[in-house]
Amino acid sequence: MTDQTPQTRLELAKEASRATARLTSDDKARALEAIAVALEQNAAAIIAANGRDIERGRSDGIGESLIDRLRLDEKRVAALAAAVRQVAALPDPVGRVVGGHRMPNGVALEQVRVPFGVVGAIYEARPNVTVDIAALALRSGNSVVLRGGSAARESNTVLVEIMRGALQAAGVTPEAVQTVDDFGRDGATALMHGRGFIDVLVPRGSAGLIETVVTEATVPVIETGAGNVHIVLDESAPDDWAQDIVVNAKVQRPSVCNAVETVLVLRQAAPRLVPLVASALQSEGVAIHGDDVVAGLVSNVIPATEDDWATEYLSLDIAIKVVDTLDDALDHIRRYSTGHTESIITTDSRNAERFLAEVDSAVVMVNTSTRFTDGGEFGFGAEVGISTQKLHARGPMGLSELTSTKWLARGAGQTRG
Amino acid sequence: MTDQTPQTRLELAKEASRATARLTSDDKARALEAIAVALEQNAAAIIAANGRDIERGRSDGIGESLIDRLRLDEKRVAALAAAVRQVAALPDPVGRVVGGHRMPNGVALEQVRVPFGVVGAIYEARPNVTVDIAALALRSGNSVVLRGGSAARESNTVLVEIMRGALQAAGVTPEAVQTVDDFGRDGATALMHGRGFIDVLVPRGSAGLIETVVTEATVPVIETGAGNVHIVLDESAPDDWAQDIVVNAKVQRPSVCNAVETVLVLRQAAPRLVPLVASALQSEGVAIHGDDVVAGLVSNVIPATEDDWATEYLSLDIAIKVVDTLDDALDHIRRYSTGHTESIITTDSRNAERFLAEVDSAVVMVNTSTRFTDGGEFGFGAEVGISTQKLHARGPMGLSELTSTKWLARGAGQTRG
Repeated sequence: MTDQTPQTRLELAKEASRATARLTSDDKARALEAIAVALEQNAAAIIAANGRDIERGRSDGIGESLIDRLRLDEKRVAALAAAVRQVAALPDPVGRVVGGHRMPNGVALEQVRVPFGVVGAIYEARPNVTVDIAALALRSGNSVVLRGGSAARESNTVLVEIMRGALQAAGVTPEAVQTVDDFGRDGATALMHGRGFIDVLVPRGSAGLIETVVTEATVPVIETGAGNVHIVLDESAPDDWAQDIVVNAKVQRPSVCNAVETVLVLRQAAPRLVPLVASALQSEGVAIHGDDVVAGLVSNVIPATEDDWATEYLSLDIAIKVVDTLDDALDHIRRYSTGHTESIITTDSRNAERFLAEVDSAVVMVNTSTRFTDGGEFGFGAEVGISTQKLHARGPMGLSELTSTKWLARGAGQTRG
Repeated sequence: MTDQTPQTRLELAKEASRATARLTSDDKARALEAIAVALEQNAAAIIAANGRDIERGRSDGIGESLIDRLRLDEKRVAALAAAVRQVAALPDPVGRVVGGHRMPNGVALEQVRVPFGVVGAIYEARPNVTVDIAALALRSGNSVVLRGGSAARESNTVLVEIMRGALQAAGVTPEAVQTVDDFGRDGATALMHGRGFIDVLVPRGSAGLIETVVTEATVPVIETGAGNVHIVLDESAPDDWAQDIVVNAKVQRPSVCNAVETVLVLRQAAPRLVPLVASALQSEGVAIHGDDVVAGLVSNVIPATEDDWATEYLSLDIAIKVVDTLDDALDHIRRYSTGHTESIITTDSRNAERFLAEVDSAVVMVNTSTRFTDGGEFGFGAEVGISTQKLHARGPMGLSELTSTKWLARGAGQTRG
């Protein structure tokens, strides 16, 4: 492929998208099964390539948590194949009729789901994203152009080769899966500026990566991910719900975007709830960054600064702030939230309904854990990402968010009067 | 307002959007009625300001067709008010429940329509767009920031003042309607880069304007408009349908995006259909730009060049090309279409279904006029624009395309296991 340019790859993907758009649901399921089998059969080659990435990462001095995200072992390769089979089993969104009616003049209008065409993805270290995104794109009838992180370069190269080989064997054009990893920065630039070739671009990774893509891209982008998530403890919050939900939202998996980062406690409830929630968190190893009131109620509090309110820790750290009123809590959220998920713990239905109405986030909750903001938990069966923008998709995205629609009009000679 | 910056206006609009989002359907209808009445009562002031724009336009030497698009007379002001009342009567999309279910653990999920927040609009000469877009944005619970063409500056200033005054009188914050016209180029730049303030930006105008906005904006954009529209005359196309539909699609209103620009005729049908269709067009004053085959069948044909296939004439000009096969027609469309609307005239159901499946445009038609691609004709009751992108909205946009959704989750203490 060495004589190709990034643009060649985009053109090949566009051309291939005409073929993938016409595949039946069964065709696509068969192609994905072929990919799953090929991943299993080539596990040794994947793990070997991944070993070279890990070796290079170690000599470049990247941290152990990144090394862990980068690692593919036998179990993880098996999980990758299983994830592909799970996507293959999802209902095909393509062809679903989502609207329509007969015009007064008799023209029959029908709005149907169609693939986007070419899905682009720019992402960071984890090589499993290479397979996940390709599987989701193919299931929804799209071709895909991938740009992974340089840390996983050898792993990604092998994964793409395996997927292309499997497609070929299954009678689907291998050009439906493209990578631009071998062009370095030029590959990413081509993706971001591929007007007419990239129908939608999904960045997945750090806030910095997403910001770069959103700012630089001239193709349509779906912004995903960053979650500075809040839980408000209302005056009426029951002890057990407050404690259980905050601990669950912080501790169950701290490194993900739906984990809570800041707890806002109404002043009247602070003496009751702050010690209770804080000690439950501390017994799980959570470091508490608190304001003066919190520091007066709990020991071992790290004084919170302005930065804490804006920080997505993604770790066993949490910020706690005491606010005078629900209005103050709503103001704080308006200022610092990334629009991902917020929850209030309350038994006061006025406050619950006000929170649901006024918080402008993708998911707004009452009395439940923010960890439920997840495609799997929402019943979509797959994790395309969580959109924090308002255009096209908001919140957890299912397969149908990787499709567009078109209108079909069937007439019998009608003209406009 | 002279001490404000463009950024101030964006901030005021964002702040106002919190209030407009909470207006009831009745509140919004009353506010729009107040705007309609104010437009009628201030018709003289509007026409006077418009007169100054026209005078300046004449002395700047702009053409008569532009002057006509710029002009507001009594009849057009009355039509503006009527259009506002029509929007006020549309069903309110906000609050509509579009999805939801109960999670296995009992959490109740509900996906509801919510306003975007702040809608930005960048558009050209026609001052009626100022009122149209503001009315549509307000009806769907949004605030709006407007950037009109400099040719209509005085008209737009007065229209915005009238709308703000009417909102104030109706008890709605006037900050819900903002203009950045008085900042010239800086106003447009602020709109395009207003991340965190502009939730969606809709450019309306020439292909050049749209291209600039799409390329430069870092906020989400809905691309509208450009229509290099094709009609294919299949071998089986009946004489009357071919003639009536092509003439209607070209002549009924040549200056709009859904007018046909190129007709592709299958070679076997060319001797039958080209003379018939061409003479019907010529008798309506249409100039025909044709290839050699067309020139051999019809007199007064302007030789078509590569440019003709790519041109959106928006005038009484049409390009006609003879192609060997349906595949060639599909290739031509793939190459030159802007993805707006294409139609095939055929009684061969195989060709009809293939055309519907393979043409990648917002609206794909069989045996009917491309002039039907229109929000009003589609029964949406309003004209937000016609999206030619695939993200969020495709084809004619109704009010609900000016909304997003959010998920509401109501629980009773559930945590994730």
